[in-house]
Amino acid sequence: MKIGIFGTGMVGRALADKLTQLGHDVVIGTRDVAATLARTEPDGMGNPPFSVWQNENAAVKLATHAGAAAHGEMLINAANGAGSLAMLQSVEEANLNGKILIDIANPLDFSQGMPPSLFIANNDSLGEQIQRALPDVKVVKTLNTMNAYLMVDPSQLADGDHTIFLSGNETGAKAQVTELLRSFGWQDIIDLGDITTSRGSEMLLPLWARLWGALGTPMFSFKVVR
Amino acid sequence: MKIGIFGTGMVGRALADKLTQLGHDVVIGTRDVAATLARTEPDGMGNPPFSVWQNENAAVKLATHAGAAAHGEMLINAANGAGSLAMLQSVEEANLNGKILIDIANPLDFSQGMPPSLFIANNDSLGEQIQRALPDVKVVKTLNTMNAYLMVDPSQLADGDHTIFLSGNETGAKAQVTELLRSFGWQDIIDLGDITTSRGSEMLLPLWARLWGALGTPMFSFKVVR
Repeated sequence: MKIGIFGTGMVGRALADKLTQLGHDVVIGTRDVAATLARTEPDGMGNPPFSVWQNENAAVKLATHAGAAAHGEMLINAANGAGSLAMLQSVEEANLNGKILIDIANPLDFSQGMPPSLFIANNDSLGEQIQRALPDVKVVKTLNTMNAYLMVDPSQLADGDHTIFLSGNETGAKAQVTELLRSFGWQDIIDLGDITTSRGSEMLLPLWARLWGALGTPMFSFKVVR
Repeated sequence: MKIGIFGTGMVGRALADKLTQLGHDVVIGTRDVAATLARTEPDGMGNPPFSVWQNENAAVKLATHAGAAAHGEMLINAANGAGSLAMLQSVEEANLNGKILIDIANPLDFSQGMPPSLFIANNDSLGEQIQRALPDVKVVKTLNTMNAYLMVDPSQLADGDHTIFLSGNETGAKAQVTELLRSFGWQDIIDLGDITTSRGSEMLLPLWARLWGALGTPMFSFKVVR
């Protein structure tokens, strides 16, 4: 499938790599292609510059966000939470409408330092804000409750026996995303309900951040035992 | 040990029952003893009136909140979240200070119907508010992320192989609470850190509520797989 990914950070890269391995045709979108390729320093998270990564992942093409949107039959928001809404609203709706948008971004607020709080919580969520801003896009919130390594290769932990959550208004869209998640190795996929249930998975992040501190590693995930 | 429990609902009762079985001397506190004993109808959650329950649990004594506080060497807040702070502030501090207070209450806001949102979240928590209001009490937040049956008998699910979280400022208090949790059957106890980490476990409740809806049963719990 043709897939467009918004965001050149570690989440976007991990997904692009995995999707390419699975035979998909991936374009990653960025705001300014020339600026992204010109960077020679690691980013704030210590990831190597995009150009270095792309040398090892030549099958993945880089384009503007508009170009990635135009390319994708399915779209993935792997941009940071704070910039996601403005980024998506900068893309011509004709290249978004009718498509599935997997939203991985979390509304993390780092303005008060670490650990982050949320800049949307409780009675709203980033997933809902994106769905309201783009009513003709099929937003499916998922993959936002574990680190990038586990997102694309859940079998690294407990033979994959941990849980991933799905939220979205369209049953058909969630079925397609479920199929994609299964191709990554996800076995325990819980459909929480409509897009308002994104509140639940996004509000897991403060606990996630504290667990990272308590456990000393981000290589953990949640299993809903039942 | 002498234990005082605030709250006559299903959480307070489940804990009183379990603690009595374990040989502890338990007093449950309520605002108005006569009114609590006079009730003949099930409560809003369908629990039988307290007097019916007490007939089968005669070892548990009922007193005012002040009486339960005076009795307890260790205290447990099993009152509802909305009333917890005012209830605790109504008790003479001399009967609280220096003691461990296990806080199980969640700041659930039912004013907009079901599922509940939180009336404190993100940059504060009920656990922190109670600790700030009672600086000489050793508040330990725990037991607030599963239903009352699992709180006191985790082995009902997956042989007890699921996770319980602890938050609190006092290492010694958390060690004593850990010992109590082990006596209930808890094996996987994660100390998240100081009382500010209550934000994380309280913010798990919106996901918990949606999972109850999606799974059709409250008999589930979270395992932190690592």
